[in-house]
Amino acid sequence: MRRRTMLGAGFATGATAIAAPALAQSAPQISWRMSSSFPKSLDTIYGGCETLARYVSDITDGRFRIQPFAGGELVPPLQAIDAVSAGTIEMCHSTSFYNIGKDPTWALGAALPFGLNARQKQAWLQSGGQALLDTFYAANNLVAFAAGDTGAQMGGWFRREIKTVEDLKGLKFRVTGITGQILAKLGAVPQSIPAADTYPALERGTIDAAEWIGPYDDEKLGFVRVAPYYYFPGWWEGSVVVHAFINQAKWQELPKSYQAALTVACQAVHTDMLAKYDAKNPAALRRLAGSGAQLRPFSQEILLACYKSALEVYAEISAKNPGFKTIFDSYWGARSDAYLWQQISDYSYDAFNIATRQNRG
Amino acid sequence: MRRRTMLGAGFATGATAIAAPALAQSAPQISWRMSSSFPKSLDTIYGGCETLARYVSDITDGRFRIQPFAGGELVPPLQAIDAVSAGTIEMCHSTSFYNIGKDPTWALGAALPFGLNARQKQAWLQSGGQALLDTFYAANNLVAFAAGDTGAQMGGWFRREIKTVEDLKGLKFRVTGITGQILAKLGAVPQSIPAADTYPALERGTIDAAEWIGPYDDEKLGFVRVAPYYYFPGWWEGSVVVHAFINQAKWQELPKSYQAALTVACQAVHTDMLAKYDAKNPAALRRLAGSGAQLRPFSQEILLACYKSALEVYAEISAKNPGFKTIFDSYWGARSDAYLWQQISDYSYDAFNIATRQNRG
Repeated sequence: MRRRTMLGAGFATGATAIAAPALAQSAPQISWRMSSSFPKSLDTIYGGCETLARYVSDITDGRFRIQPFAGGELVPPLQAIDAVSAGTIEMCHSTSFYNIGKDPTWALGAALPFGLNARQKQAWLQSGGQALLDTFYAANNLVAFAAGDTGAQMGGWFRREIKTVEDLKGLKFRVTGITGQILAKLGAVPQSIPAADTYPALERGTIDAAEWIGPYDDEKLGFVRVAPYYYFPGWWEGSVVVHAFINQAKWQELPKSYQAALTVACQAVHTDMLAKYDAKNPAALRRLAGSGAQLRPFSQEILLACYKSALEVYAEISAKNPGFKTIFDSYWGARSDAYLWQQISDYSYDAFNIATRQNRG
Repeated sequence: MRRRTMLGAGFATGATAIAAPALAQSAPQISWRMSSSFPKSLDTIYGGCETLARYVSDITDGRFRIQPFAGGELVPPLQAIDAVSAGTIEMCHSTSFYNIGKDPTWALGAALPFGLNARQKQAWLQSGGQALLDTFYAANNLVAFAAGDTGAQMGGWFRREIKTVEDLKGLKFRVTGITGQILAKLGAVPQSIPAADTYPALERGTIDAAEWIGPYDDEKLGFVRVAPYYYFPGWWEGSVVVHAFINQAKWQELPKSYQAALTVACQAVHTDMLAKYDAKNPAALRRLAGSGAQLRPFSQEILLACYKSALEVYAEISAKNPGFKTIFDSYWGARSDAYLWQQISDYSYDAFNIATRQNRG
């Protein structure tokens, strides 16, 4: 009875009768699976995945449902992008520098040592960067949108103080990818070990240092108890973008309005995740300091040596990889422009505010 | 014939026949009007309004259409919020500090001298600020979402150099609101004149200085020709949020999915507008410097005097206005926490990157 009444109501006006079947065609029920590359315990970065799914469901009235899975539930965390590329799952929420072993170009959308900060990266994407990256992603059967950022990360936990470049020699540091290459040029020994094994390795002294994310996430791992020197800035991750990677064929099957919903939701999640990190990190930093963390800035000597080493690595990669070079040149040019402007705008504003905050205690 | 065929197709499966009328009810055709407070010539800040309308239309498949109007087309630019509050128009895209004559609480969501920068403001909104502001907006029949930010603005154009607090005495400065009150305490004479009259006033020397937005927008007004000293930072506008203000009753009439579409679209536009400003300002700054703009930092003496004056103004307002005080206390506490964290994360990262950029020329 109820069904007939509803249909009858639909037919009462011509406009509704015409619109209804068109709606049914343009708003199909679609279910997707999205693998995060992160565990649920990292509630902010994994949470971006949940927020994204919720936004898309809410704005499509539950018709386009994306079920989020923690890293490892569907596919191994670091193979999430490959699984999307192969069409095993429709999409993932991951950090593309996990793939730099295949091609260092994967680093450019995520994080590059001494590269663009969070706001600058968005500006670069807006003004040409996204178009360059899109070509690269398309060659991997992917459509991708920035959908989260951690902001500048910390430089990691060290068992002893490091003050000079000499102190880097032989340093066994859990750090991956391009950063490992940069540090290896200075004599450090990059270590690639799973997150779960890092605490015991630090405790036993099998490794000397390990980097993770920032205060809020680092606190959970308890590194402060075994490697109390907490260095900043994390010059290799001045911003880390988490992308939504979507299988290209699946993307093309979506109605235009669902494509728009997903695109807009990713851009919104980007703001949301960064704001959550910014809101949670200050209190965690205070707690860590209260638990014995010794905050230390990297010395200018170390930063300059690492910067020089980074430029060498970029030149070496560019010489071998024209695809990387094209995007890197755009990225690095944007960096120069961005800091020209930031220096007199936000940076000078922040400099004064930081000084007044300190003076007031 | 076509219509009958479509209806027939709809009835061919029971599922579609049931779903269609439900869809028609939950996805009605809705048309709204949104007034910007800005002219179309300010294409980035006005453009936020167009982007927002496009996002909402795209993700609702054209069912929820919001028509954007430039400031003055429907209602006077500075009365857009009032028009929404009264229900004359459904929504606007405006900067709430235009309303501080009624209550200084309106400044808190938009911009406060020496206050939160763009990222920090998002973090504060996420972690309690939005809830506090919502109560205030609701009392004005409004629902509001941040939907754009300019980032830190410039300190304006001056006919002569100002180096000391003494130089502020008698300075006729086109600047509004709380900033005017802060500067008046130091002997300056705030001027409230329409944007269109500012150039001739500067040219004739009727006023000594005028602030506007940042390089990209300022360039169009040609102030460089008559007041070449271009000061930074704009300590009164370290971030200016543009809000989407929506009439509360109209908001409540929206289907939940349209509410979600509008909310998510606002969050996305927030990222988008800031990125556009960040992308456009560097080149405009170079052009202005090439046209004779003389970049000058405000002296520490001036900044400290203005900061002290700002704290006095906030204390005076708080003493008289408990609603302001509640939100301000949360805001100012968030500022202290935010800079504690930013100082060792993004700020220290940016400091090194700025230095390397300068060294490379």
